[in-house]
Amino acid sequence: MQSSSMWGGRFSGKPSSVAEQISESISFDNRLYKVDIQASTEHARMLARQNIITQEDFDAIENGLKMVKKEIESGQMQFSPELEDIHMHIEKRLTEVIGDAGKRLHTGRSRNDQVATDTHLYVREAISAAEEKLLSLLRQILELAQSHKDDIWAGYTHLQIAQPVLLGHYLMSWFWAFYRDLELLRFARRESMRSPLGAAAMGGANYPIDRDYTKTRLGFEAIYENSMDAVANRDYQMSFHFFATRLFIHISRISEDFIFYSTAEAGYIRMSDAVTTGSSIMPQKKNPDIAELLRGKSARVIGNFLSLLVNLKGLPSTYNRDLQEDKVYLFDTVDQVAMGIDGLSEILRNIAFFPDKMIQSLEKGFAQATDIADYLVSAHGVAFREAHELSGRLVRYCEENAKTLGTLSDGEIAELWQGKFTLPREILDLRQSPGRRQGRGSTSPQSLGEQFALAISLIGIKEQKPSGARPVFRPSTL
Amino acid sequence: MQSSSMWGGRFSGKPSSVAEQISESISFDNRLYKVDIQASTEHARMLARQNIITQEDFDAIENGLKMVKKEIESGQMQFSPELEDIHMHIEKRLTEVIGDAGKRLHTGRSRNDQVATDTHLYVREAISAAEEKLLSLLRQILELAQSHKDDIWAGYTHLQIAQPVLLGHYLMSWFWAFYRDLELLRFARRESMRSPLGAAAMGGANYPIDRDYTKTRLGFEAIYENSMDAVANRDYQMSFHFFATRLFIHISRISEDFIFYSTAEAGYIRMSDAVTTGSSIMPQKKNPDIAELLRGKSARVIGNFLSLLVNLKGLPSTYNRDLQEDKVYLFDTVDQVAMGIDGLSEILRNIAFFPDKMIQSLEKGFAQATDIADYLVSAHGVAFREAHELSGRLVRYCEENAKTLGTLSDGEIAELWQGKFTLPREILDLRQSPGRRQGRGSTSPQSLGEQFALAISLIGIKEQKPSGARPVFRPSTL
Amino acid sequence: MQSSSMWGGRFSGKPSSVAEQISESISFDNRLYKVDIQASTEHARMLARQNIITQEDFDAIENGLKMVKKEIESGQMQFSPELEDIHMHIEKRLTEVIGDAGKRLHTGRSRNDQVATDTHLYVREAISAAEEKLLSLLRQILELAQSHKDDIWAGYTHLQIAQPVLLGHYLMSWFWAFYRDLELLRFARRESMRSPLGAAAMGGANYPIDRDYTKTRLGFEAIYENSMDAVANRDYQMSFHFFATRLFIHISRISEDFIFYSTAEAGYIRMSDAVTTGSSIMPQKKNPDIAELLRGKSARVIGNFLSLLVNLKGLPSTYNRDLQEDKVYLFDTVDQVAMGIDGLSEILRNIAFFPDKMIQSLEKGFAQATDIADYLVSAHGVAFREAHELSGRLVRYCEENAKTLGTLSDGEIAELWQGKFTLPREILDLRQSPGRRQGRGSTSPQSLGEQFALAISLIGIKEQKPSGARPVFRPSTL
Amino acid sequence: MQSSSMWGGRFSGKPSSVAEQISESISFDNRLYKVDIQASTEHARMLARQNIITQEDFDAIENGLKMVKKEIESGQMQFSPELEDIHMHIEKRLTEVIGDAGKRLHTGRSRNDQVATDTHLYVREAISAAEEKLLSLLRQILELAQSHKDDIWAGYTHLQIAQPVLLGHYLMSWFWAFYRDLELLRFARRESMRSPLGAAAMGGANYPIDRDYTKTRLGFEAIYENSMDAVANRDYQMSFHFFATRLFIHISRISEDFIFYSTAEAGYIRMSDAVTTGSSIMPQKKNPDIAELLRGKSARVIGNFLSLLVNLKGLPSTYNRDLQEDKVYLFDTVDQVAMGIDGLSEILRNIAFFPDKMIQSLEKGFAQATDIADYLVSAHGVAFREAHELSGRLVRYCEENAKTLGTLSDGEIAELWQGKFTLPREILDLRQSPGRRQGRGSTSPQSLGEQFALAISLIGIKEQKPSGARPVFRPSTL
Repeated sequence: MQSSSMWGGRFSGKPSSVAEQISESISFDNRLYKVDIQASTEHARMLARQNIITQEDFDAIENGLKMVKKEIESGQMQFSPELEDIHMHIEKRLTEVIGDAGKRLHTGRSRNDQVATDTHLYVREAISAAEEKLLSLLRQILELAQSHKDDIWAGYTHLQIAQPVLLGHYLMSWFWAFYRDLELLRFARRESMRSPLGAAAMGGANYPIDRDYTKTRLGFEAIYENSMDAVANRDYQMSFHFFATRLFIHISRISEDFIFYSTAEAGYIRMSDAVTTGSSIMPQKKNPDIAELLRGKSARVIGNFLSLLVNLKGLPSTYNRDLQEDKVYLFDTVDQVAMGIDGLSEILRNIAFFPDKMIQSLEKGFAQATDIADYLVSAHGVAFREAHELSGRLVRYCEENAKTLGTLSDGEIAELWQGKFTLPREILDLRQSPGRRQGRGSTSPQSLGEQFALAISLIGIKEQKPSGARPVFRPSTL
Repeated sequence: MQSSSMWGGRFSGKPSSVAEQISESISFDNRLYKVDIQASTEHARMLARQNIITQEDFDAIENGLKMVKKEIESGQMQFSPELEDIHMHIEKRLTEVIGDAGKRLHTGRSRNDQVATDTHLYVREAISAAEEKLLSLLRQILELAQSHKDDIWAGYTHLQIAQPVLLGHYLMSWFWAFYRDLELLRFARRESMRSPLGAAAMGGANYPIDRDYTKTRLGFEAIYENSMDAVANRDYQMSFHFFATRLFIHISRISEDFIFYSTAEAGYIRMSDAVTTGSSIMPQKKNPDIAELLRGKSARVIGNFLSLLVNLKGLPSTYNRDLQEDKVYLFDTVDQVAMGIDGLSEILRNIAFFPDKMIQSLEKGFAQATDIADYLVSAHGVAFREAHELSGRLVRYCEENAKTLGTLSDGEIAELWQGKFTLPREILDLRQSPGRRQGRGSTSPQSLGEQFALAISLIGIKEQKPSGARPVFRPSTL
Repeated sequence: MQSSSMWGGRFSGKPSSVAEQISESISFDNRLYKVDIQASTEHARMLARQNIITQEDFDAIENGLKMVKKEIESGQMQFSPELEDIHMHIEKRLTEVIGDAGKRLHTGRSRNDQVATDTHLYVREAISAAEEKLLSLLRQILELAQSHKDDIWAGYTHLQIAQPVLLGHYLMSWFWAFYRDLELLRFARRESMRSPLGAAAMGGANYPIDRDYTKTRLGFEAIYENSMDAVANRDYQMSFHFFATRLFIHISRISEDFIFYSTAEAGYIRMSDAVTTGSSIMPQKKNPDIAELLRGKSARVIGNFLSLLVNLKGLPSTYNRDLQEDKVYLFDTVDQVAMGIDGLSEILRNIAFFPDKMIQSLEKGFAQATDIADYLVSAHGVAFREAHELSGRLVRYCEENAKTLGTLSDGEIAELWQGKFTLPREILDLRQSPGRRQGRGSTSPQSLGEQFALAISLIGIKEQKPSGARPVFRPSTL
Repeated sequence: MQSSSMWGGRFSGKPSSVAEQISESISFDNRLYKVDIQASTEHARMLARQNIITQEDFDAIENGLKMVKKEIESGQMQFSPELEDIHMHIEKRLTEVIGDAGKRLHTGRSRNDQVATDTHLYVREAISAAEEKLLSLLRQILELAQSHKDDIWAGYTHLQIAQPVLLGHYLMSWFWAFYRDLELLRFARRESMRSPLGAAAMGGANYPIDRDYTKTRLGFEAIYENSMDAVANRDYQMSFHFFATRLFIHISRISEDFIFYSTAEAGYIRMSDAVTTGSSIMPQKKNPDIAELLRGKSARVIGNFLSLLVNLKGLPSTYNRDLQEDKVYLFDTVDQVAMGIDGLSEILRNIAFFPDKMIQSLEKGFAQATDIADYLVSAHGVAFREAHELSGRLVRYCEENAKTLGTLSDGEIAELWQGKFTLPREILDLRQSPGRRQGRGSTSPQSLGEQFALAISLIGIKEQKPSGARPVFRPSTL
C-alpha cells in the first residue's frame, strides 16, 4: 500500500485519474488524523530511546506533529486526492515544516502497521465512547423501571396479549439485553487492545525497535505476537461490528414495541414532540419517527457488518488493498452506534406509559383465565384439564354477557361452577397476578426487587433518585 | 414524514437535538436537488393546466425554482439540519423568493409521493449513465478480444490449468457476463419508469390532478396503478441494487483472475503504473491495487443491497420513516457502479497479455494429454479407457525424462506405443488445440468469429478499428 | 470436479473420510435425478444422431436410464456418500445395467456442463411452478379485492391511521407488488433458458456435437455463446434468488400488516384456525402463526441469496469446487417459495375483514379533518393555512366534548365557524371520502374499477365469480 | 407456540395441510431429543423436590423418558408432521407409556421456556465439541510450525512476494487467528450458560418452582434474571453464529493461500490425494477440492448468520413464531463448524511444503533488495534515499545480466558501488534475512521461539513430539 510518490524512481507512470478516484481514501480516513499523530509521536519517541534517530530529530518530529495537528483542527490543511490518505498528508506536511527529520519518522515501520495501529486506536476510542453511553442508557432504563415497579403492563407473545406483568419487569427485560451488549462490547475492547506497531510491512522491522515501549505509551495491553497476523487481522473490527449489530437488533425490537404501543389502537404509551412528528389537524396522529429511524438504522449497521465479512472472505493472507475499504463501514457504524444509543435514550426520556389503558386490554382479554385454572389446580387439586374447562366456562359466560372476569359476582361463579368451588376475589384482580408468579426472575415484585439490586451492583449506581420520583416528563407535549 | 415546522400549531414541542441529528437527511439527499426541481416544475405546470393554481402562480414557481437551482449550483445555499431535507430547503427558499405562490406548489401532492418521484427520476438517470458506461465497456472487451483472437491462453478450473483456449475466447466469456448485466439493467430501468406523482400521502389527491400529464412531461412510461403501492414500493431500488451486486460479482471475479495472472509466479499479464503501485527497489513487484480495490468494492455494494433488504423486511405497508435511509445505500451504490465500470475499463486499457508465457505453462502441464487420448478414440476407435492409458504413458515418460509432450520424437512415441499407433504432430501442437473444440460456443477460431459477429450485432458497433490494431499500451511502463 | 473413482490409475490415495463427508453432495443433489436423466437421454440422442455413438448404444442408454429412474422413484436405489453425487450414482448404475454403452454416455461432455445443464433445467421447472402459483395468488387477491370494493379501510403511514381508503384498494396494492414479482420471475426464466450442454469442461468438446439439437430437445431457447461463461455462470441462479427475496420482502410486509390487524387492539381482521393457533381459555387470543412463520421465512430466503453472493465473490473464472454448494441454497429457496405463496394464499382464504371496526377507528381518529380543510380550500377558496385552522377547531371541540366529527350538528359547526361557512354532511361521512380522491390510481371507486379491468387483462381471468360473491369463509371458526 | 392439539376444545378448526407443512419443525428439530429429555427429567425432578408433583410421578416420568429415548435412538419412533415438533412427539409418547403422570410433566413450564432451555443445552454441547476440535487444530498448527521453524517461506502482500519469512512464522500467524476464535468461542459459551427454565410463557410460573435447582442440575452457571428476556433472547445464538462466521473467514483465507500455493505456477505446496482430486492423464493437475469446499462453506455460514439477524430485526418482544426457524440456521452452522475444523485439520495432515521452490521465487524477485538498503543505512549511515538508489543499482544490473543478487561477486558489487562500500555475503543470503527482523513478534527465529513458548503455555500441550519430527506424510501420494 505504498503511494505512487513513494516509489517514483524506476516507474515513470502515474495513476490515472480514474485510479486516483478509486484509490484515494482521504475523503473518509481524515478522521484518523488524531490517532495517526498520536501513534507517530510515540513511534518517534521509541526510535530516539533506541538510538535509531537522535533526540533532536524526535523533538522536531514531536513539535512538528503538534503543529500539523493544529493546522488540521483549525481547518488550514487542504485535503487532496493526489496525496491519497491522511498518513501521506501528515507526513508530507511534517517534512515541509521540519525538513529531513520528517523523513526519518517512517524508519522501522511501514504503512501497513501504521494504518493498523491507527485503526486500533480509533476503535478503542469508539468503544470507550460507546461504553459510556451504554452505561448511561442502562442507568436510565433501571431508573425508569424502578419508577414503574408497581404499574401493570401486559406481556405479549405473537403480538397478542398473554399475561399481566409489571411494567418495571418489562423495562428490565431490556436492561438485561443491553447489559449483555455491554459485556460484548468489553470483549470487543479486549480484542482492540493489542498493538500492531512494529509489525512493519508484515515481517517485522530491520531495526532494533521496542514494541513493548510503544505498546505501553499508546495504552495498549499487549502486542500482536505475530507480525503477519498483526497486519492481516480484522477480528477486532468484526467484533465491534458484531456488537453494533446486536445492539441494533435490540434497538429495533424495542422500537417495534414502542411503535406498536403508540398506535391509536393500542395507545399504551405516548412519545412527546421531541421524538415524534404529528399532524396539525389530526391530533391523535403522532408519527414515531425516531423509533422508526432507529429501526431502519439497524439495516444499515447489519449492511456495514456484512460488507466487512464479504470483503475478508477468501482474501489471501496479510495485507491486500481491498482492506482499505474497511474504514468506510467502520466509521459509519461508529456514528450509528452513537446515534442509536442516544436516540433510544432520548425516546425513553420522552415517553409516558399508560398502565390503566393496558389494564383495560387485559380485562377485555380475560387475562385472568390462566390464573383461575392454576388456582383450581394448586388450591383444590383439580386436574389441569378440568380446571381449564371450569375457567373456560367463566370466560364464555362473560363473553356471552359482555362482562369481564373482574366483574363476575361470587353468585355467578357459584352458579357456573355448581357450587363446587369458590374463587377468592384476588384471583380476579389483575393487579395481583404478577405477585403470584414464582421462581427467581419472574414478574413478581419480589423478583423485580432482586433484579434492581443485582443491576445496581453491576453498573454501580452511587446515588439513586429518591424512590417514587419518576423521570420528569415535559408536560407541554402531552 | 412531515417536518416539524409543517405541523406547528397544536404542538409546542420541538425535536430534540439528538432527534434532529437522527432525522436529518440533508447531509445526503442534497444530491436530489435537480430532480426535485424538475418534478416540482412539472407538478406546478399540471396544476396550472388543471386550473388548480393560476398561470401566474406557475410562472412564478417555474422562475423561482430556476433561481433556487442556480443558488444551489453556485454554492450559495447553506444546508442546515433544522430544515431536515432537500425538499424543505427548496420549498422554503422558493417561498422566500416568490412569496405565497410558493406555498401553493405543494397543492395536491404530499412529501411521500414527492420523495418517491424524485428517487425514481434519480435512479433512472443513474441507470442511463450506467448503461452508457456498460456499453462502452462491452465494446472495449470486444475489441480487446478481437485483437487477441489468435493468442493462446489457458482455461482454468479449480485455479489449475486445464486446457488451451484462445485468449479472445477467455475475454469474450466476460463480454457475455457483462452483457447479461446490461439486460438486467434494462429490466431495472423498466421498473424505474413508473410515476408515483399524484399518489399523495398514499390515497391519492383531493384535487383534480392529471397524473398522465406529469408522467409524460417527466419522461415516465407509465404511472403506478395504485397509490398505496406507489408510496410503499422500493422494488425498482432493489432491482438496481441487484444489478449493481451482480455486476460487482463479475468484476470481483475478473479482478481475481487478473490479480492471479499478475503474480510473479504466473506472470501472464502486466498492468501498467496507471493501475498498479510498485516498489522502488523490487522491480518485479507490481501491486494490483485497482483490481484489489474493485474486488473489495463488491463487498460494499453487497452490503448496501442487504441494508435495503433488511430495512424493508417486515415493514408495515405504505410509508414508514425507516425508508428515509434507503437513499444512503442507493447513492453510495450509484457511485460505486460508476467507479466499478470505469475502473475495470481502465485496467483493460492498461494491461498487456503474455501468451508465450502461458504456452510454457501449458507445455509444462502436459496440456495436450486429453487431446492425444481424444485423438486415439476418434481416429482409431480406441476405447476411452485404453486411450487414456496410452496418453498417460507418454506423460509419464516425459515426466521421468524432463521432457514435454511437444518435444517427443515420433520414434519415442512409436516405442512407447509399441508401434500400434502414430500421432500426427499437430495433436502435439498446443496452438492447434483450440481449433479442434467443436460445437457452437467452443474455443475454436470459428466459434470465436461467430461470437464476435453476434456481439457486434447486439451492441451495434458502427466503425471498427482496423483489424490487428491492438489497443495502445503505454510502453514506458513495461 | 471429477470424482476420485474416475481418475484412479496414477493416484493410489483415496479421499479421507472427513474429505468424503465434506465433498459428498448426494445428500442434497439427489433431487436432480429427473433432470439429469432427461439431459443425459437427449445428450445421448444427439451423440447417435451425430454418429458419435451407435443407435444401439443410444437405445440401450435410453432404456437403461428409464430403468434407473424407476429404481430411484420406487426407492430401490441406495444413495451412498462414496459415490458422491447423483450423477455418479446414475452413471454407475446405468453401466451396471447396460454395460459398456453406459460408459459412452459421457462422450463429448464433462461433469461441468452436465451439472450446469441439470441445474438450469431444475431452475426452469421451479420457475414454472412458481409462476403458476403466483398467477393463482394474483387471481385470488383480485377476487378478494373485488369482493371488498365497497368496504372502507384505513390507509396507514408510520403505523398510524392516516386516511380512509377502500379495502379493495388496499388489497390491490399487493396485487401490483406481486405482479411486479411475476415480471421479475419471467425475467429470471429468460436467463434460465440457455443451454450450457456442450461446453464440456469449459472449452467445448473434442467431438462433432450439435449443441442446437440438444438445446431444442431440452426446451431451451438459446445456447450459451461461450463455453467458459457457460460453466462459470450463476447469474440465472442469482436472478431466481433475487425473485424469491423480493417476493418474500412483500410477503413479510403483508404478514406484518395482518399480524397487526389481528391484534386484540386492532381487531380489524380475524384469521381462522386453519392458519392460527389459540388458547383454550383465552378465547380472544389467536396467534397468527402462519403469518409469523412466513415473515420469518423471509430471513431464510435472504440468507440463502446472500450465501450464493458470498460464494461467488472473488472466485476465479470458470468452475471452482466452491460452487457445488450453490444447490444447498437453491433447493431450500425453491421450497420456501412454494410454501411462501401457498401460505399467503391459505391466509387469504381464511381471513375475515371487519370494516365496521375500522370505521370506528377512523371516526375516533378524526380522519375527516383533512377532507374538511380541503373542502374549504376547494369550495370556498379559503387559504390552506386558514382552512386547516378551521378544521382543527372542530377537532378540538370534539376532543374536549368526547364527540366525533361525524356526530357534530350543523349548529355546532355554525357556532364554531361563526357562521362563515357551512359544511355538507357528506364531507363528514367517512364512507364518501375515498370517492373524492382524484387522479388515476387513487382510492376512488372509479380508479379501483380501472385497476380491476387492467388486472384482469394482465392475468387473463376467463370466468369470474358472480359479482358480490365473497370467498367462502368457514363459519365454524369465527 | 401451542400446538393445535393442545387447545382443541373451543376451536373446531384444524390447521390446513399447507399450514401444517409450514409450521412443522419435526423435520429438523428432532435432533433436540436428547437435550429435551434431559431438561424434562430435571424439571420433573425439581417438581417432585418442591412437592408440586409426587415422587411416584417423577419416577414414572424419569423411566418413561428413558424408554422414549431408547425408542428414538433405535429408530422405532415415527416422526409425523401432525405432531409438529420433537417436544410434542416426546410428550405424547410419554403419556402413552406412563399415563396421566406424563401430563403433569408440563406443570410450571411452557413450550417457550422448554424450547429455549433445549436450545441452550444444544448450543452448549456444540460449543464444547467445537472447543475440543479447535484446541486440537491449534496443537496441530503449533506442531507443524515447530517442524518448519527453520524453513524459509515468502511473506506476501497484494499476492505479490514481499519478504522472506520463516515458514513456522507464517503458520503461527494462523495459530493466533484461530486462538482468537477460541477466545470468542469461550465468550459465546458464557452466554449459553444461562438457564431460561422457569420463565414459563414469559412471566414466570404459577407454581413454587426452584430455578436454581434445575440450573445446577443442568450444568448452567446462572439463570436469566428476567423471564421476558429469557424467552426473547437469541443473543447466545448470535454469538455462536458470529464465532462460526469469523472462524470460517479465517478458514477461507488460509484456504485461499493453499489454493494459490498449490497452483502449477506456484508449486510451493502439494496436498495429497486425501484432500484433492486429480486427472488421470494430466499428472500435475491436483484440484484442491477440500480447500475450495471449505472456502465455499464460509458463504453458507455467513448466510446462516444473516438469516438469524434478519429474522430478529424488528421483532416485537418475547416470543414470536418467526423464531421457530432459528434452529434451521443453527443446526446447519453447527455441522459446518465441525466440518470446517476437521477439514482444515485434514488438509494440514496432508500437505507438503516446498521451501526450496519458494527460495527460488524469492531469489528471482530480488527479495534481498530491502535488506541491502537497510544494511547501508544501519551499518554505514547512508541516507535512506541514497541507500535505496545503491541497492536498486545492483538489482538493475542483475536484471540486465540475468543474474540474481545472491550470485553477484564482490567484484561486481565493488564496481557498481565504485568501491565506496562492501557488502557482507550474509546480507545476500535470503536464509539469513528473517534473523535480522527485530522486535517481538517478528519473523526472527528468536521471536518464533517466543511464540512457541507462549502458545504452549496457552493451550497446555503436555508432551511434545521430539524436535525435528515432522508430521508423517503419506509418501505414496506425492
